[in-house]
Amino acid sequence: MTATGRLYGIGLGPGDPDLLTVKAVRLIQAVPVVGYFAKAGRRGNARVIVDRWMTGKAEELPLYYPMTTEHAFDSPVYVVVLAAFYEAAVTAIAGHLDAGRDVALLSEGDPLFYGSFMHLFMRLRSRYAVTLVPGVTGMAGCWAAAAAPMTWGDDTLLVMPGTLALAGLIERLRAADAAVIMKLGRNFGKVRIAVQEAGLLHRAIYVERGTMDGEIVLPLAEKTDDDAPYFSLVLIPGQGRRP
Amino acid sequence: MTATGRLYGIGLGPGDPDLLTVKAVRLIQAVPVVGYFAKAGRRGNARVIVDRWMTGKAEELPLYYPMTTEHAFDSPVYVVVLAAFYEAAVTAIAGHLDAGRDVALLSEGDPLFYGSFMHLFMRLRSRYAVTLVPGVTGMAGCWAAAAAPMTWGDDTLLVMPGTLALAGLIERLRAADAAVIMKLGRNFGKVRIAVQEAGLLHRAIYVERGTMDGEIVLPLAEKTDDDAPYFSLVLIPGQGRRP
Repeated sequence: MTATGRLYGIGLGPGDPDLLTVKAVRLIQAVPVVGYFAKAGRRGNARVIVDRWMTGKAEELPLYYPMTTEHAFDSPVYVVVLAAFYEAAVTAIAGHLDAGRDVALLSEGDPLFYGSFMHLFMRLRSRYAVTLVPGVTGMAGCWAAAAAPMTWGDDTLLVMPGTLALAGLIERLRAADAAVIMKLGRNFGKVRIAVQEAGLLHRAIYVERGTMDGEIVLPLAEKTDDDAPYFSLVLIPGQGRRP
Repeated sequence: MTATGRLYGIGLGPGDPDLLTVKAVRLIQAVPVVGYFAKAGRRGNARVIVDRWMTGKAEELPLYYPMTTEHAFDSPVYVVVLAAFYEAAVTAIAGHLDAGRDVALLSEGDPLFYGSFMHLFMRLRSRYAVTLVPGVTGMAGCWAAAAAPMTWGDDTLLVMPGTLALAGLIERLRAADAAVIMKLGRNFGKVRIAVQEAGLLHRAIYVERGTMDGEIVLPLAEKTDDDAPYFSLVLIPGQGRRP
């Protein structure tokens, strides 16, 4: 009888392939199956990040997201479509694990911090042994790119999505010492207004593709357009105690 | 004329030596001088973490914190003592950089997230070229150790020190979706009361020495003593949208 395989949830870090951990590289090069999320028809950013570390020996298991053009991301229909996608992905991964093959599932940034990996993890954790390998978060890559010390002494840090309503963004920004605003995209114009209304525009930094090719770092006040892609965020560094 | 050396601020991750990034290991093995903070008379946790990666070729530059037993950590006297310590460290590092030797300064976790490194960085950044290498944060190591997905969908995450007053802790916990409370130590009893008052005790996880030898993970409700060392924190995972 074959022993069941182990699932690895592997953080890839913010984008620079050299910001994978030693443990992540070792596991990716050891397992027989490497799975990763990608948009249909694309190679996927996770797969691109690990390219230099793949030995060619592992079977690749791309998990293609359902197309999102027909339904809004937060529509009830899309939630159903997405749940079906996760179930299909679980079935594919479980097939390998049941056959005794370890599976490394790649996750941009850290696997337990806003990661799609978590949806599969919750469905598989009771059935299989899982090892989690934390990664450098995208936001840490961005504040390194900006050379911006984020939190000092007793500073609090608030991480929030730009999807929140304007009033909620302003209220939270006023209460935080340091802040990171993610998920900009179509929310960018609103986020800029919130930062300005909270009196923080002079401290805010815009970072796009931190640690990756095409990296952009500039004061939020100097960003004149509203075009903020997926890999972008706004940093507001703290100003706490500094001996 | 000798070219000036470059300063590297290197994140070491949460404690497991295999959670250094590939880039961090490469730099530590390439530079002629490796600096790190330590308590006087101790080897220091940063130095212990990199032990397996040191080649023996680099000159080591331990930076020993002034003793803290005579003065409270937040006393005016200690702030003066600490500032003098940072200035002496800057002088030692600048001596190497001026002589053309690159210096890697080690930082537990991430160098720009509550790191002592930041105090030296602010003093050296205008005079020398600096490269920052982000690391896996201590908190990411802890939530991996706890196998606890932290943030889903539109969850906000609040990171705060246990040094805040009880009322402030409770108020912030009530407003957050997910939370991390650091700097427990003598604040642990107060933090537990705050979590309970905010109605979050059933969701709270205590983690000590995450990813290191002697790692402890248990529900906060099951921790019966008030002994929480430096490398410990409380996690309150988010419960956001999950298709």
